[in-house]
Amino acid sequence: MQDFMRHSEIQAPTGPELHCKGWGQEGALRMLMNNLDARVGENPAQRIVYGGRGRAARSWPAYDKIVESLLTMDNDETLLIQSGKPVGVFKTQPGAPRVLIANANLVGKWATLEEFDRLEQMGLTMFGQMTAGSWIYIGSQGVIQGTFETLAALATKHFDGTLRGRLYVSAGLGGMGGAQPLSVKMLDGVALLAEVDARRIQKRLDSGYLDVGLESIPEAVNIALQAKAEGRALSIGVHCHANELLQYLVAERITPDVLSDQTAAHDPLVGYIPDELTVEEATILRAEDPSQYLQKARQSIAHHVENMLVLQRAGAQTFDYGNNIRREAFDQGVTDAFEILGYVPAYLRDLFCEGKGPFRWAVLSGKPEELYQLDQLALDMFGDNPLLRRWFTLARQYIQFQGLPARIAYMGLGERDAFAVRVNEWVAQGKLSAPVVFGRDHHDTGSVASPYRETEKMADGSDAIADWPILNALLNTAAGAHWVSFHHGGGTGIGYSLHAGAVVVADGSDDSAGRLSRVFFNDPGIGVIRHADAGYSLAEKTMLAHSARMRAPF
Amino acid sequence: MQDFMRHSEIQAPTGPELHCKGWGQEGALRMLMNNLDARVGENPAQRIVYGGRGRAARSWPAYDKIVESLLTMDNDETLLIQSGKPVGVFKTQPGAPRVLIANANLVGKWATLEEFDRLEQMGLTMFGQMTAGSWIYIGSQGVIQGTFETLAALATKHFDGTLRGRLYVSAGLGGMGGAQPLSVKMLDGVALLAEVDARRIQKRLDSGYLDVGLESIPEAVNIALQAKAEGRALSIGVHCHANELLQYLVAERITPDVLSDQTAAHDPLVGYIPDELTVEEATILRAEDPSQYLQKARQSIAHHVENMLVLQRAGAQTFDYGNNIRREAFDQGVTDAFEILGYVPAYLRDLFCEGKGPFRWAVLSGKPEELYQLDQLALDMFGDNPLLRRWFTLARQYIQFQGLPARIAYMGLGERDAFAVRVNEWVAQGKLSAPVVFGRDHHDTGSVASPYRETEKMADGSDAIADWPILNALLNTAAGAHWVSFHHGGGTGIGYSLHAGAVVVADGSDDSAGRLSRVFFNDPGIGVIRHADAGYSLAEKTMLAHSARMRAPF
Ligand SMILES: NC(=O)c1ccc[n+]([C@@H]2O[C@H](COP(=O)([O-])OP(=O)(O)OC[C@H]3O[C@@H](n4cnc5c(N)ncnc54)[C@H](O)[C@@H]3O)[C@@H](O)[C@H]2O)c1
Ligand SMILES: NC(=O)c1ccc[n+]([C@@H]2O[C@H](COP(=O)([O-])OP(=O)(O)OC[C@H]3O[C@@H](n4cnc5c(N)ncnc54)[C@H](O)[C@@H]3O)[C@@H](O)[C@H]2O)c1
Repeated sequence: MQDFMRHSEIQAPTGPELHCKGWGQEGALRMLMNNLDARVGENPAQRIVYGGRGRAARSWPAYDKIVESLLTMDNDETLLIQSGKPVGVFKTQPGAPRVLIANANLVGKWATLEEFDRLEQMGLTMFGQMTAGSWIYIGSQGVIQGTFETLAALATKHFDGTLRGRLYVSAGLGGMGGAQPLSVKMLDGVALLAEVDARRIQKRLDSGYLDVGLESIPEAVNIALQAKAEGRALSIGVHCHANELLQYLVAERITPDVLSDQTAAHDPLVGYIPDELTVEEATILRAEDPSQYLQKARQSIAHHVENMLVLQRAGAQTFDYGNNIRREAFDQGVTDAFEILGYVPAYLRDLFCEGKGPFRWAVLSGKPEELYQLDQLALDMFGDNPLLRRWFTLARQYIQFQGLPARIAYMGLGERDAFAVRVNEWVAQGKLSAPVVFGRDHHDTGSVASPYRETEKMADGSDAIADWPILNALLNTAAGAHWVSFHHGGGTGIGYSLHAGAVVVADGSDDSAGRLSRVFFNDPGIGVIRHADAGYSLAEKTMLAHSARMRAPF
Repeated sequence: MQDFMRHSEIQAPTGPELHCKGWGQEGALRMLMNNLDARVGENPAQRIVYGGRGRAARSWPAYDKIVESLLTMDNDETLLIQSGKPVGVFKTQPGAPRVLIANANLVGKWATLEEFDRLEQMGLTMFGQMTAGSWIYIGSQGVIQGTFETLAALATKHFDGTLRGRLYVSAGLGGMGGAQPLSVKMLDGVALLAEVDARRIQKRLDSGYLDVGLESIPEAVNIALQAKAEGRALSIGVHCHANELLQYLVAERITPDVLSDQTAAHDPLVGYIPDELTVEEATILRAEDPSQYLQKARQSIAHHVENMLVLQRAGAQTFDYGNNIRREAFDQGVTDAFEILGYVPAYLRDLFCEGKGPFRWAVLSGKPEELYQLDQLALDMFGDNPLLRRWFTLARQYIQFQGLPARIAYMGLGERDAFAVRVNEWVAQGKLSAPVVFGRDHHDTGSVASPYRETEKMADGSDAIADWPILNALLNTAAGAHWVSFHHGGGTGIGYSLHAGAVVVADGSDDSAGRLSRVFFNDPGIGVIRHADAGYSLAEKTMLAHSARMRAPF
């Protein structure tokens, strides 16, 4: 039997054997372990999964107790997780969730990074990012799809549907940022990415997500421009600070077609390396003098955004990709930082109005071929949709699995539950050798309040209203998701967002079928209603098309 | 049949007749209407229930749609309320809640009164206080019990168990503050209360909660001192600003034995009348120049707290009673404002460690005699506890019902569910002619994060950690409360607190029995665990005594 208490080289068990008393618990156990698999998470030794310091468990003793609880819990009990630490097992109902998770939440007046750091150091909280602390991260693929969708929308808007012959410049090849080069390539463009940590470049080369790694900025730029001229898809990582690359482009008057950033600037103390410091020097300064570190990082961020503004004015399609870099710069006095548009109002909101978002699944059998069977099922069910068709085709070609074989797709209202219920039938019929886990990122239509990202510039001005993610978490609990999470701070950082997640295990039972059908209809459903309530006519249309299954009494 | 769409003279229907498809919905309907009953709420015409502008519904059209939804919903559906407005009806599970409520929630960085006011004016949000927007306010009695418990603890600590021969000075006779005179009287003391609004004084005289109403400060003080000298219990309301009364006491060197305040200072724009303005002048200025109003109110609050500090130094037992007045004064430069202690760390935390808190019930029959039967049942079950015995005896004598007959009692872990399940049996056996609603204030052991009140000065420094109320709401949803709510800002104001509520209707069914037993054990249970996790040994002891029904895996 698996040693569940091992803390190195963690890998989720695979196959049909049940270690817990039910598949709800088992699914949570396997996905927690998958998040801490070295092939999946960024730094499992520190329990860091992605996004700066997004963790899956507060400490190793907490991890052990979580595992122990999941292994022993009954099918009418529920485990409570408070910022990565298990705090209670209570009797609930068989149809209720098996795990309820709240991470990093703070009372509003205290919702600052400084207070969070203080409390984290006291051992009282943990940053859960979005899918790290909610145990449904599936590696870089998760964000490749989001980046692919976003850039596809951008390409449609500005360059008739393709990035061929276009240069995309950005920085950061971390858990999220690592998705950029491949997404650009899938749309036939040229990607040029600054990354200050050589190991991150190597990691992306190893996984095949990046084509070339270079030390020299001029050389990298030259190669990129050549590929662009030839209309050849190519991705290049260059080992430097973001600012060095942008400075060079500004000085040489080279304007990229598209410009963004994916450093973890939302968490400047941990996720942003200040100019002129190496990663090693940064590690030392951060430990010895965190406030000096923060000051340096924030200064660099200000210059970084100033350079982005120069290139935007020169004609680059420039957008903030959800790391709160505009706000950090604005607070440093870059008053025009918000001239850079957020990617959600610019590109994603229309998708949210149709209930589309980062739906995903992982096969607990561990067998890639079963995942490919599900790709085929998705193509059979939704092949009419050209973007889904392109995605499923290219994903199979480009995406390497990390940990459990998994797939993500931006499915809409009515599609998600239909697909999941169908897969549950396959599990029941033995077409798949083990259950399948269905979940999503918190970065979805009805699950998040984040005025600098998902709810930026809402039509009715309701950007900061946070009732919706709370209703989302409560509704998914009522509908019987196997685990439900509610987080503060993922993506745009402490103080800037609140969001919820939900996961259901399809084990082939009728119980699972009911959960899947309710949760994965209701969950995007409340997103559509949220957008209809804000005045988006596309959302209203979607809502009316589904009025048999939900009513909006307003 | 009742006209549910009437907006004046709202009164909940009583008796065994069901207007909805189930008692979960029916209970919510009746308690919503009870909150807006003129005998219960402070200003039903504005849908204001208590606590400044704590509302039950965002608008009258929203109210109508809520009622309509409750009347028509099926028993496997759930209604979502977003800041007092119904936004969706979804299919969930028979054992799930029928209503899920989120009120006034904002993303941390935007969790300020200014932003809230802006959004409220745009019609996008509503202040729900604690039990207003969650439909379980029961009038002044709710807080009489809390005040009684608090003052009983104070009396035990400082004056050997009684307030006889002691002078209690405070201000505010609103929804909460109106409980002060009676609570003091129940402990045999003399209460002297400043209230700027003559109608509020009249209201308390009418209900018998106040003995005397006066216009002259010197006269009021004289009568109070005389009663104190004679050891006679008496309550006096004096029509003046809080500051006028305190100023007089300071000038005359009269030091009260106990000093507090219950103006709605947590919401200075609406809940605090600035010095020198009448209520009418205040209404005009508030509408015409809100920022000037705010400035005046905050200045008055600063003087108010300065006067409290003078009297504290002169020997008055002075405490902040949860209206955030210290913080408002501190922000105006009164740097020693926090020398005044909060009442929770001073007096209530020990109760929370035993899972005690403001548990309550209302009889839907509308018959006072059935409420008295339940008083007797409580005495039979818990008569060993001297404080519960004193409370149930005095409550029957002193408390006038407002709207549906209701009772509150600080019951602890294991007591709440035992009592509720027993009452459910009585309903089943026909000993009561209609169901009974069980709920509680959000001001409870496991349901709130509020660093200036319920979680002030936690032993481990976890005051601002807000995971607990979220877990509380999720757990009560999983356990099948009939309605669950999650609010921002009640009591201490926007930015200062997050809290959750849960209500179950005892309709005599097995389904209700299960819900009551799970919810009213788990709900204080997570409170006990929260305090045990913070290092309180009394909580740990309580937790271990109940380890058969909950496990804390830490
Ligand atoms: N757009 C989205 O869909 C989306 C979703 C989730 C999160 N995000 C946000 O994107 C950001 C990146 O996330 P991540 O998971 O990749 O973070 P990460 O911490 O894993 O990676 C950040 C990378 O940036 C590099 N870096 C830091 N400072 C740099 C500098 N000055 N110059 C060059 N490189 C630098 C780091 O070495 C690291 O490799 C975060 O702020 C995250 O919240 C975006
Ligand atoms: N201690 C508790 O258990 C508890 C519980 C909930 C709420 N509270 C807090 O207590 C406060 C009072 O609540 P409420 O429901 O009674 O509010 P309310 O708005 O109903 O009443 C406030 C009263 O104060 C009076 N007032 C305002 N300014 C005054 C002044 N300068 N001088 C004299 N009187 C003045 C008003 O006329 C009004 O009658 C609130 O801040 C509330 O959040 C305390």
